[in-house]
Amino acid sequence: MPELLVVGSVALDSVATPFGAVREALGGSATFFSYSASFFTGVRLLATVGEDFPHEHLDLLKDRGVNIASLQISQGRTFRWSGEYGYDLNEAKTLDTQLNVFADFKPILTEEVRRVPYLFLANIDPVLQLDVLHQMAERPRLVALDTMNFWIRGKRDDLLRVLAEVDVVTINDGEARELAGEPNLVRATRAIAAMGPKTVVVKRGEYGALMFSGNTFFMVPAYPLESVYDPTGAGDTFAGGFVGYLASMDRVDAATMRRAVVYGSVMASFAVEDFSLNRLTRLTRDEIGQRYVAFGDLTRVESASG
Amino acid sequence: MPELLVVGSVALDSVATPFGAVREALGGSATFFSYSASFFTGVRLLATVGEDFPHEHLDLLKDRGVNIASLQISQGRTFRWSGEYGYDLNEAKTLDTQLNVFADFKPILTEEVRRVPYLFLANIDPVLQLDVLHQMAERPRLVALDTMNFWIRGKRDDLLRVLAEVDVVTINDGEARELAGEPNLVRATRAIAAMGPKTVVVKRGEYGALMFSGNTFFMVPAYPLESVYDPTGAGDTFAGGFVGYLASMDRVDAATMRRAVVYGSVMASFAVEDFSLNRLTRLTRDEIGQRYVAFGDLTRVESASG
Repeated sequence: MPELLVVGSVALDSVATPFGAVREALGGSATFFSYSASFFTGVRLLATVGEDFPHEHLDLLKDRGVNIASLQISQGRTFRWSGEYGYDLNEAKTLDTQLNVFADFKPILTEEVRRVPYLFLANIDPVLQLDVLHQMAERPRLVALDTMNFWIRGKRDDLLRVLAEVDVVTINDGEARELAGEPNLVRATRAIAAMGPKTVVVKRGEYGALMFSGNTFFMVPAYPLESVYDPTGAGDTFAGGFVGYLASMDRVDAATMRRAVVYGSVMASFAVEDFSLNRLTRLTRDEIGQRYVAFGDLTRVESASG
Repeated sequence: MPELLVVGSVALDSVATPFGAVREALGGSATFFSYSASFFTGVRLLATVGEDFPHEHLDLLKDRGVNIASLQISQGRTFRWSGEYGYDLNEAKTLDTQLNVFADFKPILTEEVRRVPYLFLANIDPVLQLDVLHQMAERPRLVALDTMNFWIRGKRDDLLRVLAEVDVVTINDGEARELAGEPNLVRATRAIAAMGPKTVVVKRGEYGALMFSGNTFFMVPAYPLESVYDPTGAGDTFAGGFVGYLASMDRVDAATMRRAVVYGSVMASFAVEDFSLNRLTRLTRDEIGQRYVAFGDLTRVESASG
């Protein structure tokens, strides 16, 4: 099964929602991504943490089979993020961001890592995303990228540069509208595809996900959940299921891409059921398979028999 | 093909959106519903207008085959509504409502009308909805109802009384949350089903529609449109396609209900492409069939072949 490389953040998150709160829980874009993708394929995690990073978090990743040989422990403190959500769980309010060891993160990829065939550039500085992409020994079979409003506003030119070189972008709906400067989501999605990525995947929170690829739209609703506790990491968990499934099949044709969007949605639907990675650490392959079937049932329409 | 009866408003709408405006255009819940349903089955329109109602609007309905024998022309002015939308087209801001002849509307159903087997109680006073339902000679095969926040707030007890007697309710997502007093839409939907209607259809605007029926959720995305000009009447147009299709098939089993939700979504997707009924008056059965197929393509996932 082809391996997958992710570069992004490993963090300690403090999160409050109307349903509870956690302090300095395991978080970060590359953490959610790699944990989620590990259910589908082998994943290498390229990131940095500080000397204060709790050892049990490393064990958690190792126990799931995530390859952390490229997870560098640097002098200083781990990246910290804190945020809160109101009853509208679609948008986080960031209270504090401390880059800490991430501020000076300049990874040098080993020869082995440079040959990994699937690459996910998780939400980090687009300059760093492009640097990692350019260190690859040959063009990966698939390069996907995630970003956020912080880079859209602050490093737009760098972001456009890396977007021009990737195959897939995953992005929130509000960020898609902002990146394209276009309120209509359909037009915004087409505009982003014109920036480079052949495939645009828009994450719409409680409204599901949309993929634009090959001039065709594909839509998946969100799974109807009675209790959503914490949406933190849902987008990265989605991306982990999406790219993880593609790497596991080693195919990127249209039908496989559609199934990958459903697997991404399945993984995200579990992630939001508890804080941090708590639900994912209890997750089984059987549950993933069952919910994949349930997603099919959600939209199934049989032909009329008269 | 079994006939369908709708009671509701016929109005003159003045609407402004960021993309244009119309003054005193043909509108009203029963108008959009009956025009939409007429593509599927015979429809009788039970409503009232004033002496000022333009004759060409009556001709438009007659030309589509809508039976307007029960459309009463009363002394006074036609019901008028004016509203506007911002770039977020999901919610109208009502600027003015003049009930006019509708204030004293007390329809007496003829013997023939009392035997129509499919009934839609469009968005009007729940006291009037219940009165019409109780005038039916026998219980229709299907009774569906639409309502809005105005009645949820102002006539809750009356609304609960009629809800207890219907089979299907169609409602906006915000109104569903308000009616149930529950922010989570999945829980809200279940709570409304417990009020009486076995089937709850939630209209979510640009996010599509959801049906809860037989303890099962069904979801349809909205059609990806590059230009949405005016969402006025989209919900009633949806309901017209939904109930119209059920009446045309004379079946209300689960599979037929799912196809009906897609037909409702198809009709709504056309309605929003222009102001008033303008797009619907140009609509052909072929276009309806083509977009129904396109809806299927939007969510289709093929099984993996390895």
